[in-house]
Amino acid sequence: MNAAIDVRADPVAALEHTMHTMPPVAALGVRVQACDAGSLTLWAPLARNVNDKGSAFGGSQSALLTLAAWGLTTLRMAEAREHADIYVQDSSLRYLAPLQDDLVACAWLAPGQDWNAFLTSLVARGKARIALEAEMHDRAGNAVTRFEGRFVALRARG
Amino acid sequence: MNAAIDVRADPVAALEHTMHTMPPVAALGVRVQACDAGSLTLWAPLARNVNDKGSAFGGSQSALLTLAAWGLTTLRMAEAREHADIYVQDSSLRYLAPLQDDLVACAWLAPGQDWNAFLTSLVARGKARIALEAEMHDRAGNAVTRFEGRFVALRARG
Repeated sequence: MNAAIDVRADPVAALEHTMHTMPPVAALGVRVQACDAGSLTLWAPLARNVNDKGSAFGGSQSALLTLAAWGLTTLRMAEAREHADIYVQDSSLRYLAPLQDDLVACAWLAPGQDWNAFLTSLVARGKARIALEAEMHDRAGNAVTRFEGRFVALRARG
Repeated sequence: MNAAIDVRADPVAALEHTMHTMPPVAALGVRVQACDAGSLTLWAPLARNVNDKGSAFGGSQSALLTLAAWGLTTLRMAEAREHADIYVQDSSLRYLAPLQDDLVACAWLAPGQDWNAFLTSLVARGKARIALEAEMHDRAGNAVTRFEGRFVALRARG
């Protein structure tokens, strides 16, 4: 880890740095495109994620959507100054149409979920679960892939 | 494509060649480990697919499981001398435990599915659907990830 990046001062830069320490994420060319109070958007170039048909590889789409949801959870924890390992528990994906553009995955909280309840549970029990949704759109704004996933946070011991 | 590889003479070599023309698959270091009448097993090294916790990146697991199921469908079509593009339609994944070994994903036909019915529909309608399952195990043989997915084959026109 690069000690020059202060997770409290710039959680998004810290997230991007953590992502790029993961060889598969670096290989797929993933970048943070946008981040606001409710969502995180990741980008990856089609050229590094293309399949045998010239469109986006389904495995890359799945990876980027999972990573966007994981990344948003990581950001919310960092902002709350909590430390925990976050694991994906389960996910479902629907591939609606082939994608011939760069990959853009946006993640947000699933309906009925609450970051405060998640963080409260993490503090009280050292463990918490949260459900997120994510989507990938083409350049025209049409949804091409939909993701739902559940994540668990386990506070590091010691 | 390398014209020296005859898909009819060696469908597994042809599949591995097709996979390696996909930049993300080459980047993750995917190889065919085994193939028999009912299943296809793919392998990828942990070093290229590791996350921030030293275990297998969930996105890589998802990609390899999806690819194993796609690859088995591709092989069955090649053996039947049918030509069609195969797309993943939807999938569900359960991550049961972290994986600290190399990634090994084995795919097979889901219960109640039939390759002959799939191929017959493809010939008659130019389109067919098939459901597959896949699993990832650690070195001790414990299942760490379970995948279910549906794929559609669309026969190339002309």
